[in-house]
Amino acid sequence: MQSVPASSGKRQRVGLGLLGCGTVGSGVVELLHAGATGLAQRVGASLELVRVLVRDAAKVRSDDCPRALLTTRPDEVLADPRVDVVIEVMGGEQEAFEYIVGALDAGKSVVSANKLLLARRGDVLLERAVAAGVDLAFEGAVGGGIPIVRTLREALVSDRVTALVGILNGTCNFVLSRMLDQGDSLMAAVAEAQRLGYAEADASIDLGGQDAAHKLCILARLAFGAAVREQQVHTEGIEGIEPIDHHVAERFGYRIKHLVIGRDHGDELELRTHPALVPARSVLANVSGVLNAALLEGAALGPCLVYGRGAGARPTAVSVVSDVVAVARDIVAGVAGLQTRGIRAAERPVRALGDVESRFYVRFTVRDEPGVMAVLASSLGRAGVSIEQLVQDGLTRGHGAPASVVMLTHRAREAAVRAALADLRSAPAMVEPPRLIRIEET
Amino acid sequence: MQSVPASSGKRQRVGLGLLGCGTVGSGVVELLHAGATGLAQRVGASLELVRVLVRDAAKVRSDDCPRALLTTRPDEVLADPRVDVVIEVMGGEQEAFEYIVGALDAGKSVVSANKLLLARRGDVLLERAVAAGVDLAFEGAVGGGIPIVRTLREALVSDRVTALVGILNGTCNFVLSRMLDQGDSLMAAVAEAQRLGYAEADASIDLGGQDAAHKLCILARLAFGAAVREQQVHTEGIEGIEPIDHHVAERFGYRIKHLVIGRDHGDELELRTHPALVPARSVLANVSGVLNAALLEGAALGPCLVYGRGAGARPTAVSVVSDVVAVARDIVAGVAGLQTRGIRAAERPVRALGDVESRFYVRFTVRDEPGVMAVLASSLGRAGVSIEQLVQDGLTRGHGAPASVVMLTHRAREAAVRAALADLRSAPAMVEPPRLIRIEET
Repeated sequence: MQSVPASSGKRQRVGLGLLGCGTVGSGVVELLHAGATGLAQRVGASLELVRVLVRDAAKVRSDDCPRALLTTRPDEVLADPRVDVVIEVMGGEQEAFEYIVGALDAGKSVVSANKLLLARRGDVLLERAVAAGVDLAFEGAVGGGIPIVRTLREALVSDRVTALVGILNGTCNFVLSRMLDQGDSLMAAVAEAQRLGYAEADASIDLGGQDAAHKLCILARLAFGAAVREQQVHTEGIEGIEPIDHHVAERFGYRIKHLVIGRDHGDELELRTHPALVPARSVLANVSGVLNAALLEGAALGPCLVYGRGAGARPTAVSVVSDVVAVARDIVAGVAGLQTRGIRAAERPVRALGDVESRFYVRFTVRDEPGVMAVLASSLGRAGVSIEQLVQDGLTRGHGAPASVVMLTHRAREAAVRAALADLRSAPAMVEPPRLIRIEET
Repeated sequence: MQSVPASSGKRQRVGLGLLGCGTVGSGVVELLHAGATGLAQRVGASLELVRVLVRDAAKVRSDDCPRALLTTRPDEVLADPRVDVVIEVMGGEQEAFEYIVGALDAGKSVVSANKLLLARRGDVLLERAVAAGVDLAFEGAVGGGIPIVRTLREALVSDRVTALVGILNGTCNFVLSRMLDQGDSLMAAVAEAQRLGYAEADASIDLGGQDAAHKLCILARLAFGAAVREQQVHTEGIEGIEPIDHHVAERFGYRIKHLVIGRDHGDELELRTHPALVPARSVLANVSGVLNAALLEGAALGPCLVYGRGAGARPTAVSVVSDVVAVARDIVAGVAGLQTRGIRAAERPVRALGDVESRFYVRFTVRDEPGVMAVLASSLGRAGVSIEQLVQDGLTRGHGAPASVVMLTHRAREAAVRAALADLRSAPAMVEPPRLIRIEET
């Protein structure tokens, strides 16, 4: 086998067009500039920034981004024949979609960090990329700087992924960590996250779990070859978590984390995102603050976790540039599109939540009356749910004041647990609807 | 940009030659067989196993490995023109070295999982690979199934790695976990590791830290561009750790782990492997049993951890096949050697251990006599080392029996701490030499 030096008769440069030059875009420009020599060596050609689409060309930007490259007209990037790779870091959905389609159709490879877009329209975009024989890479769209796409796509190339459990929303994780460590209420913790810039003014997409569901849509494609719509992901946020849940969980040896969970059962997939109790000494329980993590399970590999900053301009820019290098290498080698062609996704049946089995944490707020424990226990018993551990807080035998009873169940079908709780909702001693949190032993 | 389909005029197959068909080799054969279709799609050509070197051709093997491919003569693999990639999973040093050199010189790319060889002679092998214009890939040589080489090489391609802290010896980690969780003595824990197959009959290379030092040599090249000899790595094993160290560490909120530590200070590198106290709630503290982890710190990326099975036939085989795919893709694209050419390593100065700053755990075994605390404290004070916390165990004011005193120091230069301890070694109350364990706050 004789190798061909990358420079013999091959292109000397790969042209880059940038859509958006906000914080991530500026980070990309800086990394490209600072690492130019090393990157050129890895690619086998120099990476040259050719055009940068911005909303306001007058705004002051990094010196690494010459004013002459700026344009406010998308076609000046998309139709520029010098542009081989379009880097989309502008965010949003419709405009970004149109520009990416335009780039792909023009035979340009695309690197995008747009999570919402990839989650909602990844199917269409990947199809267009394959049809055009170019690459669509998106490491930056999930988990910021964490190399999770690369690990799924490359490290596990010969393995079968059976499960994926992750902490993929930094806002939720910060809020839960803060509630546990500082004893903050949910609202106080959210306010602190906003003050520190870890949460948007409207944090509902993060706190409600939708952001995590988007990430699961993207990862399910790579992990399980499944085309998943966000409606197929059972999505719960952390809005119902109270300080008492943290305290009781800790007493049982658990911590509460907002998880993304995907499992491949062969016939069906399990796809959900919600708060869960995880063992306090597990690695996931110790991922704190705004950090993210994804724990993959490969049939041959066993567990494999990647962890790091799940958001932020610079970590995301590192992921974007790693994609640019991979895509540019393939262009130089004349095999653009090879990476993307292998991404297969099919519609796959999703297991109904009621059929999912796990252990549960159930917190009842009841009036402290004689016989209340018997009512709770017998209702769960009738539904076939057995109780493994129980804590009662302030339950003092019949003073009529509200008290908390928390039970951890053995493994049970969710439908059975829900039936028992529905049954109890109308029990006279019940002060509030019971609170249910799943337990994940990963 | 027009893409070239991988099949147009390009090779249809990539031939593989396997050196060694023990447990890892069999795992590789099985993964190649089971994943053939998907792998071919990713490579753009089929991966065809052409020849397998074994010691004993009569031994019964997996059905995936036809007897007709077996040979006991290395040249039947190395000189076979159908072999494009040689996969070395035979282990050992001298023979493996000669075969790999033979393969590289014959223009074949090589994938190796041979840690010892890469640590000791990686320089020479990488030079030969670059000279021959082929690739030498070695994800399987460090951390079994953990994608640490790939993360350093690809995810961090545009970033500067400033630190690498890892748990990279599964035997040490199992033994320490067992001492902490079951209260075993070191010897009992080692015996259990041997019983479970996690430790060799002669476990000294693992327990003494040499294995971890080999891994640091390999990773320092990728992380810091440094050519490191194992003699440059300050290496301590876990032989001196006693159950009391685990108990006291836990009381202070720490756990003891055997770490690999590399830091790039710009002018100098820090390179060491030894037991250390890590905060109980850190992710590294919660990597237990035979699992491994590597925490990288990128200047732009921030912290990034990869974690998983650091050894074992199947996880290692997953890494080997991921390398085979990457190398084969480059062969199909006509750019063999591109990956390896970028690996640069230079001799770099290593900071003397005495100049390294950290916090320390110091355990004294002293006779319980009046004034003994004053002697310990004033010796450290004279050396400029200040004490942050102190625990005394069984020190009861003057009964003359041996007692333990443990101090955690503030940050100090190691030379200063060692000077104080040397001073104390001859103190009349000292029953045993003081025990020093570094504290790592990562």
